[in-house]
Amino acid sequence: MKILVTGFDPFGGEKINPAIEAVKRLPDEIDGNQIVKLEVPTIFYQSAKVVKEKIIAEKPDMVINVGQAGGRAAITPERIAINFQAGSTPDNSGKGPKEGKIESDGADGYFTQLPIKKMVTAMRKAGIPAEVSNSAGTYVCNHLFYEVQYMRVHDFPKLKAGFIHIPFLPSQAKNGRLPSMNLDDMVKGLTASIKVAVAD
Amino acid sequence: MKILVTGFDPFGGEKINPAIEAVKRLPDEIDGNQIVKLEVPTIFYQSAKVVKEKIIAEKPDMVINVGQAGGRAAITPERIAINFQAGSTPDNSGKGPKEGKIESDGADGYFTQLPIKKMVTAMRKAGIPAEVSNSAGTYVCNHLFYEVQYMRVHDFPKLKAGFIHIPFLPSQAKNGRLPSMNLDDMVKGLTASIKVAVAD
Amino acid sequence: MKILVTGFDPFGGEKINPAIEAVKRLPDEIDGNQIVKLEVPTIFYQSAKVVKEKIIAEKPDMVINVGQAGGRAAITPERIAINFQAGSTPDNSGKGPKEGKIESDGADGYFTQLPIKKMVTAMRKAGIPAEVSNSAGTYVCNHLFYEVQYMRVHDFPKLKAGFIHIPFLPSQAKNGRLPSMNLDDMVKGLTASIKVAVAD
Amino acid sequence: MKILVTGFDPFGGEKINPAIEAVKRLPDEIDGNQIVKLEVPTIFYQSAKVVKEKIIAEKPDMVINVGQAGGRAAITPERIAINFQAGSTPDNSGKGPKEGKIESDGADGYFTQLPIKKMVTAMRKAGIPAEVSNSAGTYVCNHLFYEVQYMRVHDFPKLKAGFIHIPFLPSQAKNGRLPSMNLDDMVKGLTASIKVAVAD
Repeated sequence: MKILVTGFDPFGGEKINPAIEAVKRLPDEIDGNQIVKLEVPTIFYQSAKVVKEKIIAEKPDMVINVGQAGGRAAITPERIAINFQAGSTPDNSGKGPKEGKIESDGADGYFTQLPIKKMVTAMRKAGIPAEVSNSAGTYVCNHLFYEVQYMRVHDFPKLKAGFIHIPFLPSQAKNGRLPSMNLDDMVKGLTASIKVAVAD
Repeated sequence: MKILVTGFDPFGGEKINPAIEAVKRLPDEIDGNQIVKLEVPTIFYQSAKVVKEKIIAEKPDMVINVGQAGGRAAITPERIAINFQAGSTPDNSGKGPKEGKIESDGADGYFTQLPIKKMVTAMRKAGIPAEVSNSAGTYVCNHLFYEVQYMRVHDFPKLKAGFIHIPFLPSQAKNGRLPSMNLDDMVKGLTASIKVAVAD
Repeated sequence: MKILVTGFDPFGGEKINPAIEAVKRLPDEIDGNQIVKLEVPTIFYQSAKVVKEKIIAEKPDMVINVGQAGGRAAITPERIAINFQAGSTPDNSGKGPKEGKIESDGADGYFTQLPIKKMVTAMRKAGIPAEVSNSAGTYVCNHLFYEVQYMRVHDFPKLKAGFIHIPFLPSQAKNGRLPSMNLDDMVKGLTASIKVAVAD
Repeated sequence: MKILVTGFDPFGGEKINPAIEAVKRLPDEIDGNQIVKLEVPTIFYQSAKVVKEKIIAEKPDMVINVGQAGGRAAITPERIAINFQAGSTPDNSGKGPKEGKIESDGADGYFTQLPIKKMVTAMRKAGIPAEVSNSAGTYVCNHLFYEVQYMRVHDFPKLKAGFIHIPFLPSQAKNGRLPSMNLDDMVKGLTASIKVAVAD
């Protein structure tokens, strides 16, 4: 199997984004499956375009997008992508999203094809805090998650795809008002997740 | 300088206590200062007795007690020990504390002698979430912190003493409803704290 | 316009459910629109059956289901109902939900037809904390929300429907570890919400 | 008995301060005891000066200072005032506190003379979320609490004094990210607290 794993670049004044840092540190092979890594821009539509080109070039069996969810204390695989975008913070192009539907003819929501409950169990067994999330928000994370599902329906019907949110790094949570997770633990959690996902 | 660093044993149904795990992993020497480590029982008065015997035997210049504060996301040096104990959970002797003063002739509160603000700054510089705490609670952590201050006033006037709370380990925070911290990061934070405290 | 507003009965060891308490206290008419009130059992499928019968009997233009979300600090209109149920707590029939899809041929998600953003703005203007929520969870609240949307698609195409979560009452949040909201404020918030929804 | 109850004026960009709003709405007599109300400026030392003048003028048996603790979900009587002030936010004089001791010859901490546990029990019985707090922080609330205790030791040895923190009002917590409490519930809670305190 070939798995494309993506991570966003730094965003919103942060100097690093744990998403791409964790993705970069994944092994190139997990249980005999090839891991292809890709950094994506934290920009609406542009991020989806970059992922689509990579899917066409690499023909992966599975796509896992990884993003940061500041404030969460666990690694959280997402259940559903929703056809809605909003947010007042500008993305890395300097513009915020136009509030409303992502795709005018898309379904209201698309479930992931990843075995999220098994992934959570595997991460906890590896000692990493994990929980299924029922909302990826309405910003660029949910946007990319939704767009990949929309591509899947229209262009890549055999693809399995999903989104995993990770917490802040300790260095981002200086005063500890928000929880964080060590980078090694993120890599351990993502690896345990991928092992279960490819075996499913 | 000689520094006595103590950690509590596992408690309240938990199989491990990050406090003693982190203390055990500290180096035996930090910047030329000797680190003496001691596991203490999570028992009211008994914990203080064990620490007092060790102070008499080892004659340390500084005592740092380390305890777990489940639910915090940062390493938190405590500012003040208070002359009050309460709590419905039994300690490791099977009994809860008798609610009321810890020492009938003790002051209401005792400030730590450790440079807690500098310790927090040093930990953050090392990439570890840290914050000063203004309350060590009313359970066995505050109890031991208070008792060491009380000893100091009565028996060891040259001693510098303080208490540091650490978060849950990732393996204790399975569903991520509460924050946690990697053991290596705890050791890194405590080490940075001790370096600053001995230099003060 | 005729609006059917439902509230769940007490559940999970609680003696009262703010949902039905708040619904009962709504006026019988808001801006000339008739408010029909219904208590529904906190039971999977059974709650949907009771609501369906009432829709057939009363032919409302709009259905608003109200439920309790212990732990939230604001009134939260929900954006999307998802085709998934799970949870280990038994409902009021004594059984938990069978984990999986709610309707085997239903869409993954259905957006509400209510103007949730305007409702939030109106509630805040009335001094009531409010926020759009992107997840109604996977328990009986989301279940009923989903079932009404499913009915809408199949049986009542002109119906507008949605779900509003409300916090604990102060009397349920004794130690204040979780936030709460006064019953009068809930009624004020729901009323402001309904005014905007019927005017939309 | 005569009880002086004080509340701070609005502060930090907020238009109202629930502390003085709640105090103003207290009855003038509770169980035959006279309630004297006083608005105090949110200014270090100045607030204490105003309270001292009022104590001299009114000769109360008890002083209860009320302040806002944004982020708390319950009414929280404070256990201990500490001899330390810090904070980067300017007070209503436009200056922040000089970090360090409040009184160079004061004790590290002073316990309240109020029956805080009974007050909490009484408030919960009245349906109002309540909890004892072990830290009033290091800003102007703790400052005033400490100063009144310091006065008590030096000038008014028969005085009983204490501090009660109250949450945000619903109108201050617009998006519900922080908890809040209805003004009527604050008044109900403070009244129940005072009844128990005077009877003690």
